Amino acid sequence: MRQTSFSGMQCSLAQTLEVIGDWWSPLVLRDLYLGVDRFDDLVRDLGISRNLLTARLESLVAGGVVRRERYQERPARDRYLLTEAGQELVPVLLALTAWGDRWATPEGGPPLLLRHRDCGQPCTPRVDCSACGEPLRADDVVVRPGPGGRVAPGTMVISERLAGVRKAG
Amino acid sequence: MRQTSFSGMQCSLAQTLEVIGDWWSPLVLRDLYLGVDRFDDLVRDLGISRNLLTARLESLVAGGVVRRERYQERPARDRYLLTEAGQELVPVLLALTAWGDRWATPEGGPPLLLRHRDCGQPCTPRVDCSACGEPLRADDVVVRPGPGGRVAPGTMVISERLAGVRKAG
Repeated sequence: MRQTSFSGMQCSLAQTLEVIGDWWSPLVLRDLYLGVDRFDDLVRDLGISRNLLTARLESLVAGGVVRRERYQERPARDRYLLTEAGQELVPVLLALTAWGDRWATPEGGPPLLLRHRDCGQPCTPRVDCSACGEPLRADDVVVRPGPGGRVAPGTMVISERLAGVRKAG
Repeated sequence: MRQTSFSGMQCSLAQTLEVIGDWWSPLVLRDLYLGVDRFDDLVRDLGISRNLLTARLESLVAGGVVRRERYQERPARDRYLLTEAGQELVPVLLALTAWGDRWATPEGGPPLLLRHRDCGQPCTPRVDCSACGEPLRADDVVVRPGPGGRVAPGTMVISERLAGVRKAG
């Protein structure tokens, strides 16, 4: 399934996709978040093959977003939990889900509705600016090269262009 | 590359992955957002094969997030632009990138730095509650079945469980 490794790319989006970017992994994370945390339940929920699920879980554990926990000794039974990094990924997956509710809605409407426990209101995840709290729109963001920027596969052209922007700015 | 279609799954995350969920597509969208919008530049930037890029662009156009525009007639030259749906996906991809900056940082630190034009400040995309504007954390969200919820492949177990939660709540 994995055609090319993105691990050499000097881009945090590529690195994230290296951890969760295959098709099944975000859905496995969705299930773990919603409490479907045992192997057989994951197989049944997703309709994924056992071999593929084993590979996905191993990759998610290696990527640091999932950990395995033995919850019963005889017979041995494990469940899978989100790590802190995995928990922090959840709001982003919910924002991706909200995009899907809007632009790729399944038949009948949104399959899930969210409520924010803290404020008690129905909510839609929204990507905001950390500085002012206002919604972030694509056009409102100025992108500049950061300390890890490199002219390297995956960012060959971008790095040059952004360096040009920096000189100009 | 595509092993299983997610199009029958009653889940907006699965539907989103059907549009952008393969490895290359989010990086193609990243490039279009950053102005790398011509076929040859995309090939050079990403190190992707021409065949694979052609397939990815066709899929993104079919998914409604990218459109093709002829910018020169002789010789014929096209560029690729984000549609409105594609533009709305950008903040979510930036939030995914910010997760990568934090948990899967490339060597040297974040490759990109963002500034919010509206407030003028350096910013990190943050997923907030649309109702109260506070950051959304995984534990703070209560998930309930929505109008499109179904017991169907991809949501076999989840739908049952959430229905149970609804009865209990």
